[in-house]
Amino acid sequence: MKIYDWYDGPYPARVRIALAEKGWLLKTEFIPINLWKGEHKKNEFLAINYSGTLPVLELDDGTLIAECTAITQYLDALDPSGALTGTTPAEKGIIHMMTKRAEIEFLDAVSVYFHHATPGLGPEVELYQNPEWGNRMHDKAIRGMHYFNRVLQTQTYIAGDAFSMADIAVIGGMIFSALVKLAVPAECTALREWYSRMQARPSVQQWKAMVDAERLQRKA
Amino acid sequence: MKIYDWYDGPYPARVRIALAEKGWLLKTEFIPINLWKGEHKKNEFLAINYSGTLPVLELDDGTLIAECTAITQYLDALDPSGALTGTTPAEKGIIHMMTKRAEIEFLDAVSVYFHHATPGLGPEVELYQNPEWGNRMHDKAIRGMHYFNRVLQTQTYIAGDAFSMADIAVIGGMIFSALVKLAVPAECTALREWYSRMQARPSVQQWKAMVDAERLQRKA
Ligand SMILES: N[C@@H](CCC(=O)N[C@@H](CS)C(=O)NCC(=O)O)C(=O)O
Ligand SMILES: N[C@@H](CCC(=O)N[C@@H](CS)C(=O)NCC(=O)O)C(=O)O
Repeated sequence: MKIYDWYDGPYPARVRIALAEKGWLLKTEFIPINLWKGEHKKNEFLAINYSGTLPVLELDDGTLIAECTAITQYLDALDPSGALTGTTPAEKGIIHMMTKRAEIEFLDAVSVYFHHATPGLGPEVELYQNPEWGNRMHDKAIRGMHYFNRVLQTQTYIAGDAFSMADIAVIGGMIFSALVKLAVPAECTALREWYSRMQARPSVQQWKAMVDAERLQRKA
Repeated sequence: MKIYDWYDGPYPARVRIALAEKGWLLKTEFIPINLWKGEHKKNEFLAINYSGTLPVLELDDGTLIAECTAITQYLDALDPSGALTGTTPAEKGIIHMMTKRAEIEFLDAVSVYFHHATPGLGPEVELYQNPEWGNRMHDKAIRGMHYFNRVLQTQTYIAGDAFSMADIAVIGGMIFSALVKLAVPAECTALREWYSRMQARPSVQQWKAMVDAERLQRKA
């Protein structure tokens, strides 16, 4: 199993955390695609993923699976526990809904803000920016944090009472928010409390240790 | 099973076609939320779906599932055939990837074009428009048609050699394109040929007949 990604990217984090949940992080080969050099927008990579985004999973037979949700669905289906995507039809539906909602209302909004209303990956990579749209997405992301805070006031995890792919998607949003210095509003206490719990999870700690290790090596 | 939707909407079409594939269309109660009156942005409906979009599935126990992909995943999990979302891990991954790609590169792009660079649902509903962004999404959607055309040059269906949720997502894009008069480029012959086949499918014909019937009643 190979993953094309960039070590500290928030979307790559989603798949690395999912792999860590399964205990498969050390069994995976990671192929770096340098976001800051725009390698994800070059033809060579566009042939791997038409959308030009990371991460992408490559199976041993060459099959390519892009999109965090799709990769996580694949990984979870390998493991009959179904721990990340649910076992009953209703669980599957709710987890997919909350994962998508985490993207639309939070993670993707932070991403558009970053690429359109901040310098993003720099002028060589950000060839088109729409700052007005980026700023709208900033506000949407903040509203999203308040929404997930309300969700977490009445349940332990994003999709109910078990940890799932939906929590990982919101973790991705929190990681991206920290990178772009988008503060979680102080009044979002349930969201903050949930995030402390998430940061204490072994999978999230393994992801973080791996990022820190690679950062040190790249600096050296 | 209840669905909140609007009878001729392109996203609602995705779930209605999925229901028709299962033979469950007549067993479902449809609750109209009038898009043209902006009922989907009123607090009453936002309590049903925070994102303010249609469709939403309500189960008999009151559980709410929004997002076409999540609803389709739920419906398919009820039916052990797994015909729409795949049976092997790789099938599941590829179908989810291609469904998401159909949204990002085509259907959602057409939707943003409609809401931002055309009168959309009218001035009472479209309270904010970003025409420049809308027009970029127009161009993205056209590129998306070319991409899916290339995919269909070497395989029979969007996610491989079986009909799936990913075909339904691209059908949604074609339905939305027709509504906003976005023509499929003449050179996209594989996409056009695939769409003729899709329009001949019983599920798509049942969807269309239902829309036509409701349109006549609403006019009367
Ligand atoms: N929908 C994709 C989004 C992935 C994504 O946006 N990844 C970032 C890396 S953290 C990326 O490639 N950004 C580059 C860009 O959008 O130009 C997924 O869920 O995998
Ligand atoms: N991501 C949603 C999108 C659904 C969607 O955009 N539905 C349309 C109806 S065809 C809608 O509610 N549009 C209203 C709006 O975006 O303001 C899904 O897949 O279900």
